[in-house]
Amino acid sequence: MVPSGAAVADGELTHVDDEGRVRMVDVSGKTVTRRIAVASCVVRMTPATVERLDDLAKGDALAVARIAGIQGAKRTAELVPLCHPLPLESVEIGLETGDGSVRIRSRVVTTGRTGAEMEALVACATAALALYDMVKSVERDAEIDELRLEEKRGGSSGDFVRGSS
Amino acid sequence: MVPSGAAVADGELTHVDDEGRVRMVDVSGKTVTRRIAVASCVVRMTPATVERLDDLAKGDALAVARIAGIQGAKRTAELVPLCHPLPLESVEIGLETGDGSVRIRSRVVTTGRTGAEMEALVACATAALALYDMVKSVERDAEIDELRLEEKRGGSSGDFVRGSS
Amino acid sequence: MVPSGAAVADGELTHVDDEGRVRMVDVSGKTVTRRIAVASCVVRMTPATVERLDDLAKGDALAVARIAGIQGAKRTAELVPLCHPLPLESVEIGLETGDGSVRIRSRVVTTGRTGAEMEALVACATAALALYDMVKSVERDAEIDELRLEEKRGGSSGDFVRGSS
Amino acid sequence: MVPSGAAVADGELTHVDDEGRVRMVDVSGKTVTRRIAVASCVVRMTPATVERLDDLAKGDALAVARIAGIQGAKRTAELVPLCHPLPLESVEIGLETGDGSVRIRSRVVTTGRTGAEMEALVACATAALALYDMVKSVERDAEIDELRLEEKRGGSSGDFVRGSS
Amino acid sequence: MVPSGAAVADGELTHVDDEGRVRMVDVSGKTVTRRIAVASCVVRMTPATVERLDDLAKGDALAVARIAGIQGAKRTAELVPLCHPLPLESVEIGLETGDGSVRIRSRVVTTGRTGAEMEALVACATAALALYDMVKSVERDAEIDELRLEEKRGGSSGDFVRGSS
Amino acid sequence: MVPSGAAVADGELTHVDDEGRVRMVDVSGKTVTRRIAVASCVVRMTPATVERLDDLAKGDALAVARIAGIQGAKRTAELVPLCHPLPLESVEIGLETGDGSVRIRSRVVTTGRTGAEMEALVACATAALALYDMVKSVERDAEIDELRLEEKRGGSSGDFVRGSS
Repeated sequence: MVPSGAAVADGELTHVDDEGRVRMVDVSGKTVTRRIAVASCVVRMTPATVERLDDLAKGDALAVARIAGIQGAKRTAELVPLCHPLPLESVEIGLETGDGSVRIRSRVVTTGRTGAEMEALVACATAALALYDMVKSVERDAEIDELRLEEKRGGSSGDFVRGSS
Repeated sequence: MVPSGAAVADGELTHVDDEGRVRMVDVSGKTVTRRIAVASCVVRMTPATVERLDDLAKGDALAVARIAGIQGAKRTAELVPLCHPLPLESVEIGLETGDGSVRIRSRVVTTGRTGAEMEALVACATAALALYDMVKSVERDAEIDELRLEEKRGGSSGDFVRGSS
Repeated sequence: MVPSGAAVADGELTHVDDEGRVRMVDVSGKTVTRRIAVASCVVRMTPATVERLDDLAKGDALAVARIAGIQGAKRTAELVPLCHPLPLESVEIGLETGDGSVRIRSRVVTTGRTGAEMEALVACATAALALYDMVKSVERDAEIDELRLEEKRGGSSGDFVRGSS
Repeated sequence: MVPSGAAVADGELTHVDDEGRVRMVDVSGKTVTRRIAVASCVVRMTPATVERLDDLAKGDALAVARIAGIQGAKRTAELVPLCHPLPLESVEIGLETGDGSVRIRSRVVTTGRTGAEMEALVACATAALALYDMVKSVERDAEIDELRLEEKRGGSSGDFVRGSS
Repeated sequence: MVPSGAAVADGELTHVDDEGRVRMVDVSGKTVTRRIAVASCVVRMTPATVERLDDLAKGDALAVARIAGIQGAKRTAELVPLCHPLPLESVEIGLETGDGSVRIRSRVVTTGRTGAEMEALVACATAALALYDMVKSVERDAEIDELRLEEKRGGSSGDFVRGSS
Repeated sequence: MVPSGAAVADGELTHVDDEGRVRMVDVSGKTVTRRIAVASCVVRMTPATVERLDDLAKGDALAVARIAGIQGAKRTAELVPLCHPLPLESVEIGLETGDGSVRIRSRVVTTGRTGAEMEALVACATAALALYDMVKSVERDAEIDELRLEEKRGGSSGDFVRGSS
């Protein structure tokens, strides 16, 4: 029963121990390095709704999504139970309106013992949810898709670029 | 400059005023009714990863996602800037492992002046993110898709069932 | 898989469904009534440490515990995963220094669909932890004991007074 | 020692009992009514800095302040220890750039047992702090002044309009 | 009146200054080292209730307590007013069901300027409260006892093992 | 659209990029140093109200303001959208009652890549708001003024002492 900070084998679901019990895995033996994570997703809606958002771009509408994404990233460890709290050093959110969609991209930087992949994903998710909240009075059918990690750099497990392996 | 609690026209982006400035829209004139919202999404991963999660189902793995979803729903008003805080009366999260995917479904009940659509969507998103966090050590390519509102009942704007209009 | 808001049988562990899966149980059918909960606990330490706290009573030391208890009560739904958020209408914390102990008592009032038992217990626990934090530089061995519900009034399940059944 | 939910005399510092001990005062006997609070403050800076903010008005700068104010209002009960959590139904923030200052005005609506004065003040304060954060790289000397309640309507203690008594 | 970051004498209640006023004590002069804290407590209930929890062990019941403990540890600095925020690197919660009790043990690791004793205690307390919440529908009399620090390693004040001095 | 972590020119509003879009600016290239920030403000009220607070000074009234300030400082990154989370190592709040005012002064220490100016200002603001909350039952007209940065030491942009340039 006594927890023991056991080492973690690669290629395993590291957040559960041998008996399937969850833990916040011990990263205290890892090296502190600069780490970058990039994630993205897309919010699909009708071209007419995108147009309204574009009209509002001179106002606050896209700013709400950007700020929600930045604020969400900071709260990752509260939302995702087994995440370590991380000292975020940069969060940027890009929004690109297209034909029937808004594409969201986040980039998060931290200097720590574990990477910021979850923070980048949470940033995209909260920005997308804030955008949905903004358009739901005109289009309840809008949908969030393709929320995924695009890149991860730094840390002992090596770099990752989606689609490049 | 003085905010004035102006009435909201239907079919508009209600979270911004005539000059594109955001606000938490005034719902104090709306009726208190029981409201239900159902949302869903899917987390795509390889069948091999789904199998590992199924093995762990006797342990804590899926419980983490369920609890993250419930806890996330309660924090919706902190994450989505223009959401009203709501007294949630029920949050349930269903998880169904399939061939190469885990399907997530949330159902949220509140008795209030505005609906719990955002709460249901946030519940699905946080459950999905917690699941991604669980499998990312074996599959960074997992992806969250089709996050959307399925149903909404109660409230003056009428019921909504996705795909039925 | 689809959650269904099933009714809850008395005498069961209501936070888990038939298959052992957690949920925030549906209270939307319950009546809104005024509800009171009282909890207590004791923090044991040497008489010498209690004396120091008593000397400080003119200063801020016991105030920290009282405020921590009040603030903790408000965050119960964030700390206890399956708790419903409740509109707290009163939180009071009493502290009584004795011979080798500080006794803590909380009283919480809410008007809602479910009781504030957990809020009263969290209030005592956080007040006790703040007190431990205060004395730990002189006595690491201090211990928190007998954290329990004393009374509960209001609501359909009837009143409860500890030791009276 | 046992807290007892004693009644509160008018004209007293209600947050402390007869012995100077803090409590979250019992409002469960008060009537649920619609309540409005308006607050304001001013952020003083050089005209040159105000001009920069005005240039940015097409971008996100003032939106950050508005959103920070709305989000801050929702967290009032976490920041101000003896505040009751309130179900906010509307939060609006107005910003007016002038000659050497930005004037901030908030309006908060709730339907509850106690008023939203603190929420309106916290909204102004967080909006002003977010604005300071925005300009501090060019003007550390900026100052926040005249943070005060302007109006309060609804509730048993009567309406209040600053300067009218 | 001007705070001055005064040095802290050992053997004193360090969280209050000479005049009894609280502060978050200055640890910026301390060395960054790896620190471990272990805490424990016991939740007492009837053997019949423990048996129900054991039956549920294949489901989510004990997972809720484990996750609540991990999540609670991360929020220690919000709950205990004078605690420093710490970058937690590992949190593990062990639960052992016995005859008429569930024993809880936490182990927390951080690399910082101050130890994680409070985080370990908060982890046990929140896990125990989540467990109480789970069983309260069948046994309101359950009680939390013996919440205490078991071990502390690392840091300038030396190691501590309960009962060994 | 892709965010790129561009370098920041001095003398600019660093929280917005060339197109006026907000971001949490990248500080990962900055050096970790010890940094101190001091802020202050004043809460104006009638001499009679100050006298009541002074009477209560043996009780908890001023302690509430001190603790609110310390707790507020820890939450700066949640309140001010573009602030980086910082590991606070000391927070002290001084309160001085005068003739018709209470003067508040905060001092915050951190060792990090960016300074704690916002934390010091948030500490003063929340302490002042808690104080207003305490006196508002007797004097709604109380006002918070002159909230400003007094000093800042450490970091690449050099020291700052208000009024000395």
